[in-house]
Amino acid sequence: MKTLFTSDYCEGALPRIMQRLQETNMVQTVGYGEDEYCAQARELIRSACGRPDIDVHFLVGGTQTNATVISSILKPYQGVLCASSGHINVHETGAVEHGGHKVLALPSPDGKITAEQIAEAVDGHFSDANHEHMVMPGMVYISFSTESGTIYSRSELEAISKVCRGNNIPLFVDGARLGYGMAASELIEGDKALTLKDFARLADVFYIGGTKQGALFGEAVVITNDALKADFRYCIKQGGGMLAKGRLLGVQFAALFEDGLYLDAARGAVLKAARIRKALEDKHFEFLVDSPTNQVFPILTEEQMAVLDKDFGFEVWHKLPDGRTGVRFCTSWATPDANVDLLVSAIERL
Amino acid sequence: MKTLFTSDYCEGALPRIMQRLQETNMVQTVGYGEDEYCAQARELIRSACGRPDIDVHFLVGGTQTNATVISSILKPYQGVLCASSGHINVHETGAVEHGGHKVLALPSPDGKITAEQIAEAVDGHFSDANHEHMVMPGMVYISFSTESGTIYSRSELEAISKVCRGNNIPLFVDGARLGYGMAASELIEGDKALTLKDFARLADVFYIGGTKQGALFGEAVVITNDALKADFRYCIKQGGGMLAKGRLLGVQFAALFEDGLYLDAARGAVLKAARIRKALEDKHFEFLVDSPTNQVFPILTEEQMAVLDKDFGFEVWHKLPDGRTGVRFCTSWATPDANVDLLVSAIERL
Amino acid sequence: MKTLFTSDYCEGALPRIMQRLQETNMVQTVGYGEDEYCAQARELIRSACGRPDIDVHFLVGGTQTNATVISSILKPYQGVLCASSGHINVHETGAVEHGGHKVLALPSPDGKITAEQIAEAVDGHFSDANHEHMVMPGMVYISFSTESGTIYSRSELEAISKVCRGNNIPLFVDGARLGYGMAASELIEGDKALTLKDFARLADVFYIGGTKQGALFGEAVVITNDALKADFRYCIKQGGGMLAKGRLLGVQFAALFEDGLYLDAARGAVLKAARIRKALEDKHFEFLVDSPTNQVFPILTEEQMAVLDKDFGFEVWHKLPDGRTGVRFCTSWATPDANVDLLVSAIERL
Amino acid sequence: MKTLFTSDYCEGALPRIMQRLQETNMVQTVGYGEDEYCAQARELIRSACGRPDIDVHFLVGGTQTNATVISSILKPYQGVLCASSGHINVHETGAVEHGGHKVLALPSPDGKITAEQIAEAVDGHFSDANHEHMVMPGMVYISFSTESGTIYSRSELEAISKVCRGNNIPLFVDGARLGYGMAASELIEGDKALTLKDFARLADVFYIGGTKQGALFGEAVVITNDALKADFRYCIKQGGGMLAKGRLLGVQFAALFEDGLYLDAARGAVLKAARIRKALEDKHFEFLVDSPTNQVFPILTEEQMAVLDKDFGFEVWHKLPDGRTGVRFCTSWATPDANVDLLVSAIERL
Repeated sequence: MKTLFTSDYCEGALPRIMQRLQETNMVQTVGYGEDEYCAQARELIRSACGRPDIDVHFLVGGTQTNATVISSILKPYQGVLCASSGHINVHETGAVEHGGHKVLALPSPDGKITAEQIAEAVDGHFSDANHEHMVMPGMVYISFSTESGTIYSRSELEAISKVCRGNNIPLFVDGARLGYGMAASELIEGDKALTLKDFARLADVFYIGGTKQGALFGEAVVITNDALKADFRYCIKQGGGMLAKGRLLGVQFAALFEDGLYLDAARGAVLKAARIRKALEDKHFEFLVDSPTNQVFPILTEEQMAVLDKDFGFEVWHKLPDGRTGVRFCTSWATPDANVDLLVSAIERL
Repeated sequence: MKTLFTSDYCEGALPRIMQRLQETNMVQTVGYGEDEYCAQARELIRSACGRPDIDVHFLVGGTQTNATVISSILKPYQGVLCASSGHINVHETGAVEHGGHKVLALPSPDGKITAEQIAEAVDGHFSDANHEHMVMPGMVYISFSTESGTIYSRSELEAISKVCRGNNIPLFVDGARLGYGMAASELIEGDKALTLKDFARLADVFYIGGTKQGALFGEAVVITNDALKADFRYCIKQGGGMLAKGRLLGVQFAALFEDGLYLDAARGAVLKAARIRKALEDKHFEFLVDSPTNQVFPILTEEQMAVLDKDFGFEVWHKLPDGRTGVRFCTSWATPDANVDLLVSAIERL
Repeated sequence: MKTLFTSDYCEGALPRIMQRLQETNMVQTVGYGEDEYCAQARELIRSACGRPDIDVHFLVGGTQTNATVISSILKPYQGVLCASSGHINVHETGAVEHGGHKVLALPSPDGKITAEQIAEAVDGHFSDANHEHMVMPGMVYISFSTESGTIYSRSELEAISKVCRGNNIPLFVDGARLGYGMAASELIEGDKALTLKDFARLADVFYIGGTKQGALFGEAVVITNDALKADFRYCIKQGGGMLAKGRLLGVQFAALFEDGLYLDAARGAVLKAARIRKALEDKHFEFLVDSPTNQVFPILTEEQMAVLDKDFGFEVWHKLPDGRTGVRFCTSWATPDANVDLLVSAIERL
Repeated sequence: MKTLFTSDYCEGALPRIMQRLQETNMVQTVGYGEDEYCAQARELIRSACGRPDIDVHFLVGGTQTNATVISSILKPYQGVLCASSGHINVHETGAVEHGGHKVLALPSPDGKITAEQIAEAVDGHFSDANHEHMVMPGMVYISFSTESGTIYSRSELEAISKVCRGNNIPLFVDGARLGYGMAASELIEGDKALTLKDFARLADVFYIGGTKQGALFGEAVVITNDALKADFRYCIKQGGGMLAKGRLLGVQFAALFEDGLYLDAARGAVLKAARIRKALEDKHFEFLVDSPTNQVFPILTEEQMAVLDKDFGFEVWHKLPDGRTGVRFCTSWATPDANVDLLVSAIERL
């Protein structure tokens, strides 16, 4: 059996979550997220965000959440601005387009877009004489952390939020890996690290990823902008995201948020990824992208890949013209230190 | 605390399922349903259907499954024939239309449609001089058991399948409550009861509901028609139904199908519903519909409702012009005999 | 050659329209409806509606106009209430559903729906415990005149408008045959006839049909509700309705509205239909529906159909169980008196 | 009054077309393109294509035609490959996405894409381990002539067709300016010029643009691939493109194709554009793109623009970083020699 670093969804769920699901298994509740566990999880998330006024909804997975949120916001002739590498642009089989909307991709070397790019796209649209013949930018989608493992700094995120509000365009943050991103932000920005309170303040909608961060599955959508709140449950149902046993999501997010488990688990994963990165740096490996989160993207030769492939699972990310390959090693809440030890040793032997 | 008979998704999952999820929790697997548990579950379902050639896919919930299957089959100008009471027509917030297709509803007093209705709708379409101005019937959707708790007899289902094949129109069976339906079919038709082998033979696509039948969640889509198999995983991903930790579905369906647990659990629920029905019949209650499955639809007066409402949860189904109300009592794999005892006693006291 | 009464689009356009198109043919203008002819036509329509504040847009055809207006108004989880016989429900190949929305059909024997039906549908939706699982009524679509040739009385239309506004649900009037309807309203209600000013007051959006009323093609959409005005040109372009040579629509509608030609032409057609109706009544024919506009729907025996079919074109509308057939005779702005004479004589000889 | 070179749709229609519309104006026909004029036009186009087996349909405008053809071909999870500057990607307000499909844009400096780019995109998709998470390339869209006025050479088009067929991916040619492209091909390739017979052989679907080539409006869709023919009229109706008075399209295309008027008119426009290009070259102007068709894209300084703007209309195409502006001058079937004389003189005076 290989030790897998292929993704952050190789295992099931944090032990506490499994225990709570077991404990509550035969309790009878109403369905569709209107049960007491969901109510409790909502309150915990509101509290973590420092905002009693926000709406919190639980959906099952990321593609579904993105498609549902985007469809709920855009008018038919509007599209969503995002990085060309954004998950909605590349890896959701066109779910946004299936819902009727164009993804307006902006070039991005590292998974991030800038406030300037957004401003240019919006200004460019409205100043074009033929703008009625073009898709109007109607919202902005960013990922935190991004698909490349990078994160926005506080100042970058503030700037993006400002340009969005200045143009009356909602900002949506895909937080499938929000915890890993926040944990990395702590390491980089210390006291100025981006927290849930910041996302609640700067984004109009964002979600707190569960699937990749210790839950069996589940994403908690937080709507902070009053104008976007109405009727969102209709959208969830229409998009197939209204779990009959919604309690399962409530139980899990309550477990994650009752005492900070969500962020704690993410911190551990980020530190483990840092050990792997350090081992690679010490051997002077190059990286596809400089990622401070739970994903590490070294560039390997064919021989190096073959050696590591004997004992470890990892993902091929991008083949380079020179014959080398950028790969991804991913840690998670579930990665044991022992697995990291094995990988670090193997790297040292390369 | 009231004892809930409101639905068949009030509790979590069968104990065996919880145990298996716990046992496999930290095993590392690949994602998106390509793991060994899903492979095993697929084989068990193929075996139960007596068809090694069928494709089996696992999705999360019913609305999602219906939208995904229907979108995968229809051409843009085609619609889906179904009973006016069909789940896709009434209770999925227009998910089929969101995907671009009209639901062509046929009148139905009991949740079922007939081969004759289908033939008429198809013939009527193509014989209309303006048929190019009208939505072409492109597939048939039926539920087994239906939203009214009824089931098709063997001869009814054979006739529907025959008319569909004669017109080259795929037949899709929504099996969110397939097990309860099969268990009732056993009681009614004995040796001629409809089995999974029959559905694999008569339908082009059907699904085996997990959510309402003992799993935490999950629906197993079975594609028997070769022409409908290609690229279905693209559709699942686009529709938001490709669970990252697909293993969770594999583990659950393997547990349900390794030794007949799926049908056994359904049989118990149907027998418990029969006890409730018998108690009501003994008191000469009328019923909205004559349902042999796990759903019972008695008509109550306001006083009777008020009495039962003190101790029991049930669903208001339909208000009658005479002031009485048709309600639904639902049993499930999770209903303890003691709960049925309590309800039967209460009915006897009415 | 048969004399055709099959539809109101058997011929080209009113002579004045052909002349104006010829006269302006080589004048250079900008495209997409921003030319001087469109500006002039808009002013004439605003004046006829007595409302300088309304937005007027020109589209090419009815199906396109309906799909564009409906898509511009509804949110993804909303549907459009209409008569079961409504054009959008029956004869547009599911264009509304292709745009993502359910048509919420209400039963109607004569092509009309009532304020009561609308109120019930809306109240019924929001009072249903499962309303989030159902498509929300988001607008009302009526046709004037209807597909059955009937028209709403002033009081009926006032009541519908009132219930729509009371529920904050936009009212959209499909006026593909608006002129014929207004002409019939004059005959029936005299001083209280419904005029363009009434439609501008009572509807949130309506359109003035050109295709069936003397233009080569074209429908003039009038948006009276400020909340529905923004960005409609984006919707037109997306829906394929923004004619490059938009001038063609401006020239035609200017010709129709510069001195009342639009309504005059319709009045003539309605009087001719009345002659046909009278001839049929005199011979004690029954009618499918009692239509006061340019469409007449007598019920014929097979022999009668065979006799008339030798010399006249008409449409088969509905076969009756007794073997007779309801057919449609249609007059238009183009119908010569001589043709009506021929048909009346033939009817008298039946 | 300025002399307009802004587009090829500034005027009405060729005199012969206006005359035929006038002559046939009061002839009664059936609707929706099933009349004798459409039949005649179809036969003329089949003959011009040398293919009695092709299907020919008449739609109203280009955006509508593109959306209808693309929607009729793609499966829900498929997208359409095209140049980043392709009309469907830039200037149709997301009509393709509104129909549910992603536009898979390929970089293009001159409006053209290559067989190699297509092969890479298709191979790249299917060789990606995550291809089920990505939109599958399902067809190829090219424009002839392109939005930049360029054309494919015979060998380029043959290569594109070959790679499409090798991958079983339909090739769709947007021929909004097909005639101008064919006329330019004659000038460049002489005996090897691309003709309608070539498009009928190399494309699976293409259309012959009328709107920009002498008709009031109208695009003739030619389907050569048998697999794409079925039920296309349903798609036209659903997409709002089935003109009630379809005869108008038949009359126009019959007039254009009875004796080669279509191509003759295009040849004249291309020669006039060549005169403008020559005048600019003589003055050593640079061009945005080297276009041999009816569109000319010189780069002007602000002063030059201001001078020309006094007497001529032209389109701003692209502002350059150095302060100059790429503009478009467009000739058409309607451009008088005198207008070209005026512009050439003005250029010479710059």
